[in-house]
Amino acid sequence: MPAVAGPEIERLIQLLARLPGLGPRSARRAALHLIKKREPLMAPLTSALQIAMEKIVVCGTCGNIDTQNPCTVCVDPRRDPSVIVVVADVADLWALERAGAINAGYHVLGGTLSPLDGIGPGDLTIDALVSRAHDPAVTEIILALNATVDGQTTAHYITDLLRDANVKVTRLAHGVPVGGELDYLDEGTLSAAIRQRTLF
Amino acid sequence: MPAVAGPEIERLIQLLARLPGLGPRSARRAALHLIKKREPLMAPLTSALQIAMEKIVVCGTCGNIDTQNPCTVCVDPRRDPSVIVVVADVADLWALERAGAINAGYHVLGGTLSPLDGIGPGDLTIDALVSRAHDPAVTEIILALNATVDGQTTAHYITDLLRDANVKVTRLAHGVPVGGELDYLDEGTLSAAIRQRTLF
Repeated sequence: MPAVAGPEIERLIQLLARLPGLGPRSARRAALHLIKKREPLMAPLTSALQIAMEKIVVCGTCGNIDTQNPCTVCVDPRRDPSVIVVVADVADLWALERAGAINAGYHVLGGTLSPLDGIGPGDLTIDALVSRAHDPAVTEIILALNATVDGQTTAHYITDLLRDANVKVTRLAHGVPVGGELDYLDEGTLSAAIRQRTLF
Repeated sequence: MPAVAGPEIERLIQLLARLPGLGPRSARRAALHLIKKREPLMAPLTSALQIAMEKIVVCGTCGNIDTQNPCTVCVDPRRDPSVIVVVADVADLWALERAGAINAGYHVLGGTLSPLDGIGPGDLTIDALVSRAHDPAVTEIILALNATVDGQTTAHYITDLLRDANVKVTRLAHGVPVGGELDYLDEGTLSAAIRQRTLF
């Protein structure tokens, strides 16, 4: 960064560059944009960050991020408390909620098992999940984990641990994405879509 | 956004989505990243924005953004005060400074003339530039404007206004970008590069 901009602006750019999706170049553009839109954007963003800093907590039950603990999902009486959807990350919870895919409880693992990255069972909220699964009110655990090696390894590990719990353990269907073209799909997906075909 | 995340997080995402380079999807990712990196990233970014809000000012002389007025460039005694580099935007000033292209003063117009966007001479700091150009200490005005229609229209307009001032008005050279391949360049650039060829 040029010395002409002052250390305060340089610091702002460096911090913005650490956001996912922004590099050094776009962080400069973002900083300039903020400075130019001081009242309509920089002021409200500053205050939104302050409020978020003060209010945001991790739900002690499911691991969701919210401004209350237990979170909005956990205290929502309209949700089916007998089903827990297990996700790796809060982003996945948000994605399922945006889709309106299911009206149930969640459990955020905080990642997936990844020996290569040194992430073992102790780094995830697996113990808490097993204990929630032993609640007699819970009848089904849906493993909504990525269809990657790490995601599926985690799914198998959890399934083993839940053998003693009196719950049905299910996972997401594999198949053709809605709007997807067969020509562009890999063999594994196509085979799964054929195997798990449904009546028309 | 899902209602599960709370209005405070939703507001943060909406504001982040207004940064250039971030859309709704990457703003969600950025917000989650900030929330997860509360102490190492969210806290310093919040405070950097607060400091920027308090300290950043526009230089009353050249239009640069800094934490002092007149800005670091304008008060720098090592710069040649006889040359003023005219740029459309602070981002261009920063780009020239990163390149170490020239050690002179600047003048930030705040944009380029654009009849289609309703940007006329009154919306830019052209009057202030003309008045600076009449300072006897100033001998050259370098128009470092984009090689676009708007940039060149602005350059011509300013050149006309500076006819009475006792200054040399110059513009950036056209030519092959360093590292550029001829095969990918447009005809206009190639013709200009031939016309303005230099001795080897």
